[in-house]
This record gives sequence, C-alpha cells and structure tokens, in this order.
Amino acid sequence: MRTPLDCLLNPASIAMVGASANAGRIGGMPLELLTRFGYAGGIYPVNPKYQEVFGKRCWPDIESVPEPVDLAVLAIAAAEVTPMLRRCHAKGVRAAIVYAAGFAEAGGDGVRLQDELEAFVAESGMAVAGPNCMGFANLNTQAHTAFASVFKTAPAQTRPGVVSLLTQSGNVCAAVYAIARRLDLPFSHFINTGNEACLDFSQYLEYLAADPHTEIVLGYIEQLRDGDRFVRACRELERQGKLLIALKAGSTEKGAQAVRSHTSALAGDRRVYAAAFRQLNVIEASDFAQMAHLASLATLRHRSAGKRVAVLTMSGALGAILADKFIGAGLDLPDLPDTLQSVLRGGIPDYGMVGNPVDVTGNVVNDPDFVRTVLQALATTDAIDAVVVYAPGYMLDRMADALAEASRQHSRLFVAIDTGLAQSRAALREAEVAVFEDLGQAVSALAPYLLWCEARGAKRVAQAPVPEAVAVPTLPCNEVDARAYVAAFGLPQARAHAARDARDAVADARAAGYPVALKILSADIAHKTEAGGVVLGLSDDEAVQAACDQVVRSASQAQPDARIDGVMVQKMERGVAEIIVGATRDPVFGPVLTVGLGGVLTELYQDTSHRLLPVDEDIALQMLRELKAYPLLDGYRGKPRADLAAACRSIVAVGNALLAAPANVAEIEVNPLLIKEAGQGVAVLDALILPATP
Amino acid sequence: MRTPLDCLLNPASIAMVGASANAGRIGGMPLELLTRFGYAGGIYPVNPKYQEVFGKRCWPDIESVPEPVDLAVLAIAAAEVTPMLRRCHAKGVRAAIVYAAGFAEAGGDGVRLQDELEAFVAESGMAVAGPNCMGFANLNTQAHTAFASVFKTAPAQTRPGVVSLLTQSGNVCAAVYAIARRLDLPFSHFINTGNEACLDFSQYLEYLAADPHTEIVLGYIEQLRDGDRFVRACRELERQGKLLIALKAGSTEKGAQAVRSHTSALAGDRRVYAAAFRQLNVIEASDFAQMAHLASLATLRHRSAGKRVAVLTMSGALGAILADKFIGAGLDLPDLPDTLQSVLRGGIPDYGMVGNPVDVTGNVVNDPDFVRTVLQALATTDAIDAVVVYAPGYMLDRMADALAEASRQHSRLFVAIDTGLAQSRAALREAEVAVFEDLGQAVSALAPYLLWCEARGAKRVAQAPVPEAVAVPTLPCNEVDARAYVAAFGLPQARAHAARDARDAVADARAAGYPVALKILSADIAHKTEAGGVVLGLSDDEAVQAACDQVVRSASQAQPDARIDGVMVQKMERGVAEIIVGATRDPVFGPVLTVGLGGVLTELYQDTSHRLLPVDEDIALQMLRELKAYPLLDGYRGKPRADLAAACRSIVAVGNALLAAPANVAEIEVNPLLIKEAGQGVAVLDALILPATP
Repeated sequence: MRTPLDCLLNPASIAMVGASANAGRIGGMPLELLTRFGYAGGIYPVNPKYQEVFGKRCWPDIESVPEPVDLAVLAIAAAEVTPMLRRCHAKGVRAAIVYAAGFAEAGGDGVRLQDELEAFVAESGMAVAGPNCMGFANLNTQAHTAFASVFKTAPAQTRPGVVSLLTQSGNVCAAVYAIARRLDLPFSHFINTGNEACLDFSQYLEYLAADPHTEIVLGYIEQLRDGDRFVRACRELERQGKLLIALKAGSTEKGAQAVRSHTSALAGDRRVYAAAFRQLNVIEASDFAQMAHLASLATLRHRSAGKRVAVLTMSGALGAILADKFIGAGLDLPDLPDTLQSVLRGGIPDYGMVGNPVDVTGNVVNDPDFVRTVLQALATTDAIDAVVVYAPGYMLDRMADALAEASRQHSRLFVAIDTGLAQSRAALREAEVAVFEDLGQAVSALAPYLLWCEARGAKRVAQAPVPEAVAVPTLPCNEVDARAYVAAFGLPQARAHAARDARDAVADARAAGYPVALKILSADIAHKTEAGGVVLGLSDDEAVQAACDQVVRSASQAQPDARIDGVMVQKMERGVAEIIVGATRDPVFGPVLTVGLGGVLTELYQDTSHRLLPVDEDIALQMLRELKAYPLLDGYRGKPRADLAAACRSIVAVGNALLAAPANVAEIEVNPLLIKEAGQGVAVLDALILPATP
Repeated sequence: MRTPLDCLLNPASIAMVGASANAGRIGGMPLELLTRFGYAGGIYPVNPKYQEVFGKRCWPDIESVPEPVDLAVLAIAAAEVTPMLRRCHAKGVRAAIVYAAGFAEAGGDGVRLQDELEAFVAESGMAVAGPNCMGFANLNTQAHTAFASVFKTAPAQTRPGVVSLLTQSGNVCAAVYAIARRLDLPFSHFINTGNEACLDFSQYLEYLAADPHTEIVLGYIEQLRDGDRFVRACRELERQGKLLIALKAGSTEKGAQAVRSHTSALAGDRRVYAAAFRQLNVIEASDFAQMAHLASLATLRHRSAGKRVAVLTMSGALGAILADKFIGAGLDLPDLPDTLQSVLRGGIPDYGMVGNPVDVTGNVVNDPDFVRTVLQALATTDAIDAVVVYAPGYMLDRMADALAEASRQHSRLFVAIDTGLAQSRAALREAEVAVFEDLGQAVSALAPYLLWCEARGAKRVAQAPVPEAVAVPTLPCNEVDARAYVAAFGLPQARAHAARDARDAVADARAAGYPVALKILSADIAHKTEAGGVVLGLSDDEAVQAACDQVVRSASQAQPDARIDGVMVQKMERGVAEIIVGATRDPVFGPVLTVGLGGVLTELYQDTSHRLLPVDEDIALQMLRELKAYPLLDGYRGKPRADLAAACRSIVAVGNALLAAPANVAEIEVNPLLIKEAGQGVAVLDALILPATP
C-alpha cells in the first residue's frame, strides 16, 4: 500500500499545475526535464492557455486529467495554493509540491496563508512539500519536479542511485548536487524542504531510512523542528546500516543570524547539535565538496576501517606533511610492529622510513614485487585499520597494480592520494580504492570518516534507568531545597547547614569545624557570588559573624526584592578538582547534560562536554575525558588521582534528576561538584534548580 | 657583475656531466627539457660514451667544452663529486648542481664525502646546490636542470613567471608545481635545496628577495639552518613588497620525527616558527593547493584588502554557511552601515538580507542595474575591506558583468566563489576578480590572505632598546640573585627576604606582616613547588616555624645534592591575575619570549603567546590579547581591570634581561608575575635564571 510520501517521492504520475511551455520558467523546466530524461510515468501539464507543452497534451484544469495523479506540482501564486490543493484532493491526488514563496517566511498575510495550508493538510492527510521549495527529483525514476538547471549542466547519472540529498535550502541542494555529480556520486533522491509547513526534515529522514534506494543521506540543516523525531530517524538509519552526513549552518552568531533572518526561526544551540550528531553517529560536515567526498568514502563502508592509519609514500617530506595533518585531525599513526618493520627494512634503504609514515623512497617505487610485499603486509597487520598511499602522478601509477590487488584481496580500506595526474585513478577506483586528488580534501574527508568508522564499532549508548519520581520542591527554591532534591538521586553533599542569623551561623560553624564558607540563602538569588553572597575560608567565630552581616548586606543591595531565608554554613572541604555538572532542556533536543571543569577559566576556554540525556557512567567518563583539563583528574604532575567512579555516578545522577523533574524545572546545576581523591568520593558544594520562565 | 648564484639560478650556459641519451634517466631528462622548451643558452652534454645527445654535440670531458660554462650539473656518483667540482672550478665554472645522494643523509662514509665537499666549496667560492637535490628550473629562460617529469605533464607556461618555488624537498617542489600550474600560476624559479651542504634555504631566499623576476615565494621548510639570515631575508622581501608563503613540516611529534628521520636534523619548536612567521609577515600555509591559491591571490596584492569582508549571495543558506566559515577562520563580517543598508533595501525584497551577508535573492540576480548599484556601493564603502560574491553557475554569470566592472573601476579586492560551472570565470579573472571553485579552498586561502593584508598595514615591529649591561650573577644562582638581576631591568618585586633559619624567617614575616609565603632558597632547585619547597598563606609565627622545617626537609629529600641557602619569606600579595613571562633561546631563531596565564591550566590549554625578541610594549599588549584568558585581565565579570601598562613594561623587561645576558644564560623566567589593579602595578613573585647546559 503506497503512502502519501511514496506518492511525493516516488510518484507514478505527475501533474504540473500552472504548466508553461517555456523551459526557463518554473512551470516549464520540470516538464522539460521529465521529457528530456524519459520519465516513464504519466505527465500531465495543467494550464488552460495551452493545448500541448513539451510534446505532452496540456489539460485545462486538474479535474479534466483523465488518469489518476500521484503528485501535483503547484507552480501557482501563494494565495491560490490551498484552494487548488482542495481541488487536487477531491480528485484523489495524495501528494503535492508547493513552489510559491510568500507564506510564513514573508510575515503578515503570508502567515495566514500558511496557517490555512497547514490546517487543510492536517485535515486531508495529503503529503505537501514546501511551500517555498525548489521541487524534488527521484534520479532512479527520473521523476523531476525541481526548477533547477543543475540537472541540465551536471554530468548525467548512469548508475543506480544510492545517495539521497535532503536539505533545508534549495540552493544548497543544487550546489551539493553539482559538486557531487562531478565526483560521479550516484543519487537517488533530491529533496529540499522549504518552509516545512507540513513535512519537516525528520519526516523525510524517516522515509529515507526505510527507502531501499537510499544508503547514504547528505543533509543540510538550519533548524530541526522535531528533535525527538530526528533522533528516532537517526537511530533507524543506524539500524539499517545507513549513514547521515550533515552540514549544520549557524555555528557563529552571524551565521545563526543569517539563518534566522531567512527562516524566521531559532537556530538552536550549536554545541548541542554537535553532541547529538556524535551520539547518533551522524558525521558532521563542514563544506559541500567534503560532503561529496564523505559520501564517496561511505560507499566503501563495508570495508574495515578505523582511526589507526598507515601512511605509505615515496618521500619523507610528503609523509611528514600527511602525518601532521592526520594527527592534527584526530587520527593515529601508530608505529608499526617490529616484525612488520623488519619486513619493510628488507627492501627499503636506510634513508627511507619503516615506522609510520613508511617512506619506501623513489627507487623502491620501481620494484613492484617489493611494493606488493609491503601492501600485503599492511593489508593484514592488526596494528592499523586503514592504509593511505600518497604518491603523485606516475609514482602512484607504478604502485597501482599492487595497490588494486591488495584492495581486491582484502576487506581493509585503501586510500590513494594523487596530487599529480596519475593514469591509474580509474583502475584504482574500480578496485574500491578511494582516490583523492587534493591533500586538504583528502584529510578533511578521511579524518571524520575514519573517526566515524571507529565510533561505529563502539558500544551503543545505554539508556540509563530513570529512578522513580522524587518530590520536587516548589519553585523557585533555595539551596537547601535544591540540595535535598539532588541528594535523593544519590549525590553526596558537603556538610552544610542553614542558619537564620549570625548566632546560629557561629554555632553551626563550630559544630562543623573551622574553616567554613558562608553563602546567602535565597530562592531568588541564582548567582550568589555575583551578588556578593559568598565568603570562603572563614577561620573563627568573629569572621563568621562579620561575614554573615556582609553577605546579607551585599545580597540585599544587589537584589533588593529577593527574599532572604538566612545563610548556609558549609565546612570547607579539599579535593582534587571541582567540576560543574548541569542538566538543561534544549529547545530542539530536550534534556541535555553539560560537564566542565569548575571555575572562571572553563568558560573562557569553552572546555565543556555535552550529551543528550540519559547518559550512563561510561558516557560520563567519556565526557570527563573529552575535557582538555582532564589530566587534572588523572594524577597530573604528581597530584593524587580523582575519584572518577564517584564523579561519573554523580554526573549520571544530575541527568536523572532533571529527567525525573516536571516540565517547570528548566535546569538543575551542581556547581561545583568537588571530586576528592580516588576512593574518597565527591561532595556537592552547591546546587541550583531553575524554574522555566513562564 | 654576475655572482655565482646568478650562474646557478640564471645560467647563460649549462654543462651536463654524466649526460645520457635516455630521457628517462637523470642525465638525460634535463637535456631533453632544455631542447624541448628551447633554452637559448649553451648546452654542453659531457660523457665520453656519446658523440651527440638530443641533437647536441657531446663532449668527452668538461675540459674539452670549447665555451665558458656558467653551471655544471653533475649526474655522477657521490664519491666522484668533489674531484669533478675541482675540475669544473679549474675550467672557470662558477656554479654546480649535485644530484647524488649518499652524503650526510646516508651517514658513515657519506658524512666524510659531505665534509670534503663543504671544504672545497668554502675554498673555491663556487655556488653548489644539493647534494641530494632534484635540480632546478628557471621558467623564464627555460634553463631546466631538474629530473622532474612534472615539466612534461603540467600545462606549459606562456606568461612571464613571477612566482618562485623554494623547497627543502624535491618531491614537494614537483607536487606544488603540478597543482599550481593547473591554476595557471606563472613561475620563475623552481628550486629545491637538498642537503644544503653549501647553500641553505635562507641564502636562496635572499637571492629571490633581490630577483626582479620574483614577486611571490612559495616555500617548504623542514628546518632552518640559519634563523638570523632567514629573518633578514624576510625583512628584505617585505621591504621589496614581496611575499613568502611557507609550509612548515613537523607540527606534530610524528611529523617532526619523519622530518628528522629523513634529514637527520632537529625540526625546531613549531610554536616559535609560527610566531616568527607572523612577526615577519610570512603567510603560513597548510597544504599544497592552498599554497597555490594563496599565491594566486597574492598576485592581486596591489588591491586594497583586509579582514572586514562583505559577503554577497543570492541565498540565505549559502550566506549563513560562508559567514560561519569566514568568522570561524578569524575574519570579520561587520554589519553594513545604515545608509548602505537603505540603498540595498531599495531593491532587495523583505525575505532577502541587507546586513552582512547580503542576500539579494534569486530574483534580483536578474536585475543587472540593481546588482551594479549594490556592487558599486560595496566597492566604495569604508565599512569593509573586501567583497566576496558567492553564486553558483549561471547565477554568477548573471552578475558577472557588473562584478567585472566594479573590479575594473575600483582597487578593492573582489572575490567570486562558483561551486557550479559559470561561463564567466575567465572574464572575471581577466578583470582581476579572484575566482574559487571550491568553498573550502576559498576559505582556507582567503582567511590567511586577508589577515595578512590586515597585518601588512600594521605598524612595523619596533626594536626595543637593549639597556646597558647589568652584572649577571654567577650561575647557577638562587632566587635572590635572580630577582636582583631582573630588578635592574625595572621589574618591581614583591616584598621578600632571604632568611637563614626559622628564627630569621619569623622575624622577616613579622616585619613584612602576615600572611606570608615561604619558599626554599637554592640555586640547585629550579622547580621549588615540585620539590615540596613552597608553602603559601602562613598566618602566624608558629606556622612559619613549622613551614620552615617542612620546606627544608622536603627539598632535601627531593634533591639530596642541592645546596640550600635558606628560605625566602614573602608577603602574600593580592592582584587581579598571575602571568608567566619567560625568555629563552630558540636553537633556530635565538632569543624568544613566551607569555601565558599562570597556573596549572595554562599548560593544559596551551594558552601562550610567543615572539622573537626584542619586543616593545605594543607587542607585549598584543601578546596578552592573544591569550584566550585575556578577558580575565580586562574586567571580566565585574572583576577589576588589571594594570596592563605595567604588565607590558614588565614583559618587555624580561625580554631585555635575556638580551643583555651572556650566552651562558639559557632562560630567564618570571613566574608568576602578579598583575594588580589598574594603576597599582605588578610584582615579581618568583624569578629564575637557568644556565645553558654545557
């Protein structure tokens, strides 16, 4: 049973409403493409002005089309769109593409038109693409509905398509297609989503996850309207062995502004997108040519690969340059095992190199038997995951036969970089060797691809259990209540007491033992330090008394309306390091966890790690390890090691605390969490629960 | 009067010693190239085996060549090289190229051969290139001496050459040439330096600085043998309005190993190279294609440009992507002035953008008059320095006339990015518009080029005066002596006294006022903290006494052989931040200054700034501003501002202290330097002078 989305993306017949006989006009170009490329389904131009266009009979209106229509393409003005959709629906048309701009993106009347369109679609169940989109193409059936001249200028496709383009911009769709076709990447779908009034990026992605003609999706994302659905679609892609390669616009404020300005929507937090992509095994791309190269590599994803690379070259300099670039991009170039080095030393002169990079030297290139020995050895050693041969022009040609043979015989990924003009490129590609002609492009595609291969084999993100609900304090709440809430999730607390006045505070301090810290206690003051509400290192009764007066006075001055509940007296504790653990709700992806080293420098160095929730302790440890400051926790310069196990339990607990909280809790933050020496646990030094802004 | 280097690089006649009739052999290929490309000078093959090669009479030995010879190319074995050079010299030959490997790089006997070669060259004054080099080419005279097939496969050059290649690897020379010729870059010299037994990179660079046929140098550097000479050559290039674009290998440990392994020399400190390049207005490149694109841009360096870029496109998405990439690479996209925005708004619909990026929308592309208005406005506004138009394929074609016109009429740099296949590329290039066909390559070349344009206009590095010599303490010296030395250069000291024993220390502490810090005093202990020799925050006599015992005990345990001179008692002072200022001697570039935020995190975040010495206070401020942690000094989150003026004076002073010191002082380090609030100055909290290791 065909769904409306099947009718949209794989139509058996197409009506063009507002057809034109001019191939330069939007109502004409798709008709020209359909006939030029020999679409086998029904083609029904609709326009009372013509008898015939592009050799096809033209019908006066949609009602007079004599056959069933899967897909109606509307090349008509915005105001006419919904009335025409009603007529199409009445005729039994189940899918439509709307080119017209002048909907929500234009504001004013356009918003009303889009509301009307959305309401009709909800009621009718039609699959309606756009509005404000460029139209699609199914390259396997030549179902062209896009007014995009790129199909006329790009090299025609002869192989069955396996790559689908899914973009939130028609121009990006066309630009990537043009570049990727020059690399002979075989496409199945060309989809750009326009205003996404009815169908959003994630819905198309779901379709492509199930589509037998899609193995790889090239995506361009400005903003996701449904983060949950995106996550589910990505998991399904992964389950199917498919891959999404996505470029996300808006990584800078100016870029985000530009996105907002032309989509009138928020671009979302860049770092959360990046974290989500990593967690979902989506490769994040940074430009169009790189996307095409990544997709090309991904057609070889049945080959074994990972981040441990052996570089083979005939020049120490080229090896050094490539080593710098690969390692700078996060790959490893492990030294080759001694036994393997001995084999190499058998044929490589002293002034060559047998470690990694391997420099066989210019002379050895001419010895095909030895080159074959080297490549076979690299194909079979367990010490590496992929082999990159860098030899320009005829140097590569001399090694090409041995390289093609190794690639044919072994499932390991082989890559050739040829900055000259080797004759053997086609033969190597035929043998499934990935060939690059530019060093920069080679590294920019290989590094994320090989890191993806590495992560692909890794353990799947475990769903941490969400504990039973715990009573959440009424919001806003002060530190005492916040601590009590997080404590219920297993977060150990530093010894602290609430005191109503200075006398109480002194008594508490004596009971805790000096030195102590004093903090203002108020549900209305989220940033205590900035309000002058914190004094550390108090060593006697007198100091406590004075500090008590001071924090109350400062806090009252900073926030005169704040209700002050007293002060917190807290024993000063020592540990190895302090971290910040925060759980927030991202507008796109929902609950998100952030971990960073505590203190003022963390923000300046942006040294934080993010994950979609839930997380487990393994992921918590990954997050800590991602911090540049991680060595501080791991016995840096003779310091004791931190209790990482306890830290990870606490990180998971903060996430669980938000997952268990009702929707009016926007954020839960433990800052700082003191991590003590290994075996001594952790202590919450401060906790904060922020309500959602109404 | 022609110099030996003229004879080498611009020879009037060439003898090939060891000539071959086989164009595939190293003694044959250059002869084939010389005849193929019509070299007009004398060509004298030398080999008793032949009567004639490549249509030229072949001579039995160098002595029998009847005409004067400028340059002898030796295609003979290593052991024969110096004897043959003697014979060439006797004949009056003033320059030679030595292909042979098997010298210093091979070790053993090769070292002796290279010593012999060097001695002869020193005595004879001949200009000898190599050994172990690929040979050269002068593309303006077609003087080919390289056995590099790239000259046969690369597109031939028809314009006069202005770009010279100067590399420490023959393979890199050939690889860059191949790529750059595909971009039609016109070359003058093709030079690769081999073992640099007699002529090193910097000597060739000096020659190119004076060469009238060289405007741009593409360099590849593994290691500089003469840093001073390199610095002087770069300054001369700058004075001549020329530009060096350099790729440095060895930025990673593995890359450096690979360089060392095939050059058997140290690669030097990567960060010092990078700092030197920036100071000398050398553009540091990262790959071959980028080098070629940078050189291509640099042929337009008479045009005004800088880092404030206006982006013009017909797609919000393409604008957003480009904005992200440019800003990520360090360029600015300033908002356009209101008056200019009004002009743009006159023709751009509401759903377009007039800020920056400017999205004229797909429709407006078809309105040449308005496009002309926009481009003229961008050509003349003071708010930006360069204009980048991103429009693929026919979209660019539609704007091409207006773009070419604006570029012809104005000296501002215009750039076009065309990821389609625009017809207008050649016409645009004719009008001096830089055209890129790949987004990633456009950004990777434009960003460093525009940043270079920006820096080129900046004030030239001032030579800070070196004060008169001050008495340097005998080395090794302890903290008291180190402080006294740096104090002479105007570095204010925190109040500190040397105490012989605990009783002394208590008296000092009382005089200074509590709290105090206590440090071990020993010329033999450079790292006091690691030796347990530092206790901070002592608040009474008892604590001082205990700490005194403790630091002496710990230090003695850590370094039993260290002579202990007592302890330092230092008043605890408060300030805004602590920085580290260190002056060291780089093996390549000599005296170098490092500035970083103090504390353990600086090293983990590698947040340091480096400069060749001397520096002045302006440069010191630049160094501080380059730190990611700089905001801490500048009133971060309500903190007081630091006394930057005093900090800069002190940074300059540490540099001067090293410049004035004798060669046995390897390093002077002030760590930490406490920076107090603005107007309150700085204080040296600790100072260290390290002797050179003998």
